[in-house]
Amino acid sequence: LDASVGASIFLKAEVFQRGGAFKFRGAFNRMSFLSDSERVRGVIAMSSGNHGQAVALCARLFGTSAVIVMPKDAPRSKMEAVEGYGAEIVTYDRYTEDRAEVVDRLVAARGLTPIPPYDDYQVMAGAGTVALELFEQVSALDVLVVPMSGGGLMAGCSTVFRALSPGTRIVGVEPFTGDDTKRSLEAGERVRIPVPRTIADGLQVDIPGVLTFEINRLTVDEVVTVSEESLVDAVAFLFGRMKVVVEPSGAAGVAALRSGSLRADGQRVGVVLSGGNVDLSLLVDWVAARPDV
Amino acid sequence: LDASVGASIFLKAEVFQRGGAFKFRGAFNRMSFLSDSERVRGVIAMSSGNHGQAVALCARLFGTSAVIVMPKDAPRSKMEAVEGYGAEIVTYDRYTEDRAEVVDRLVAARGLTPIPPYDDYQVMAGAGTVALELFEQVSALDVLVVPMSGGGLMAGCSTVFRALSPGTRIVGVEPFTGDDTKRSLEAGERVRIPVPRTIADGLQVDIPGVLTFEINRLTVDEVVTVSEESLVDAVAFLFGRMKVVVEPSGAAGVAALRSGSLRADGQRVGVVLSGGNVDLSLLVDWVAARPDV
Repeated sequence: LDASVGASIFLKAEVFQRGGAFKFRGAFNRMSFLSDSERVRGVIAMSSGNHGQAVALCARLFGTSAVIVMPKDAPRSKMEAVEGYGAEIVTYDRYTEDRAEVVDRLVAARGLTPIPPYDDYQVMAGAGTVALELFEQVSALDVLVVPMSGGGLMAGCSTVFRALSPGTRIVGVEPFTGDDTKRSLEAGERVRIPVPRTIADGLQVDIPGVLTFEINRLTVDEVVTVSEESLVDAVAFLFGRMKVVVEPSGAAGVAALRSGSLRADGQRVGVVLSGGNVDLSLLVDWVAARPDV
Repeated sequence: LDASVGASIFLKAEVFQRGGAFKFRGAFNRMSFLSDSERVRGVIAMSSGNHGQAVALCARLFGTSAVIVMPKDAPRSKMEAVEGYGAEIVTYDRYTEDRAEVVDRLVAARGLTPIPPYDDYQVMAGAGTVALELFEQVSALDVLVVPMSGGGLMAGCSTVFRALSPGTRIVGVEPFTGDDTKRSLEAGERVRIPVPRTIADGLQVDIPGVLTFEINRLTVDEVVTVSEESLVDAVAFLFGRMKVVVEPSGAAGVAALRSGSLRADGQRVGVVLSGGNVDLSLLVDWVAARPDV
């Protein structure tokens, strides 16, 4: 990897986190603040997958129940994992329904406590422990690369680095088709885009979070975008040469570096591999569509 | 994994070793003993894949050249990796030709030094550092599980555990179709079997090594066998739930535990994942043939 990029790369492999992604950190931190009566009524989360798994798992750990609202085209492996943790799944159509309304109805009817996927200070703080650990493990980095969706992982991680390593260049990565944060930073305000169609299902939001954007506009130096092809290349490279299973969203940082969207010649670069929940059959379809990988 | 097996499992992930498998350890140790004149002439190795990669990589590190003799049906990824390290490949037909003769011809013609894949004390000692590290990392184990092919990994690992942890039960794993060591231990002498056809291409030898067998007959408590189906299940489980890429040979220990070939209820079990060099397309074919995985 170092040779192919021309830099010293340090991968923070959140694929090995409980639930297979960094999302456990934010959900656990948020749910540790539940009151006794909130725990009795249960929690609810809307999620394209990894956040749902994290909330389902944490609900079990905290002895409460969870309803997970998922798009009906979410990867099968993610649905099965949520059910495996004992949570209830409610599905919606991500191209025609407003998931927030689906959640609001359930909250009103059952008195559930929403666990936001990113737009919450306790969730962001939990996610930021990714960067805290990475800093403790490898210290000085010239560049920190973080995939961006709602922006919670970046808000937590960039806050940590701005405090502990202010000279580090902080770079977000989005799919080319899902560049809502890049556009928002350029516009100086939150910009909504059409729901992006990308294999990076974890990066498929259409607008940055309110709270996350207020932080990221101050902390992030740059957002770069990556093509679908470079996401497949990165997933295949991480599989074949690093022996790590990473989902396309999680491989966005490696995609940016290997494709040249992000140049970091000779630098020390920390890259967050944010999650590894990918169906083998999907991985194969993507690679088959690119026989040169 | 613990829940599915009913034991506390500690995976020693040699997939993250240089070259993607434990083989680097033995090759490096052996090649550190090369004389100056041997280094000038170069080395040769016969290998179904991972040993070849290790020797090719070590040749570069020691500033010498390597010829790797490989079966012509070896996985493409392994051939490409060997070439990527700058070694020369000579192929043979594993069902009709004697690979030892192919090597002997090249040794005689070019004055190359053979680096044996397992039947060599320095190679075994290098491989044994897998167990030494595992012992330092997790100390007391009730059971140590090691895939067996020529027996070099087992000879090194079992020697370490017999010295440092004599009470640990030492279990080898072979494919059901490639049970040469199991038969040899039962017979009290080396037994040759037909070259096994198995997806575990790294465990495809037909007879234990001479030196390795003399050690393993004294150190190994038991050899269990696993089916092809359980190898696929183990590879798929390690991919889907552990996010680690493991080749069928490397997953033999997990296959034994998950299939019930090896019972270790409530025990602390160390399992060597010996390598991770697997083509994505092959992995898919295997899983597709077992749709319930």
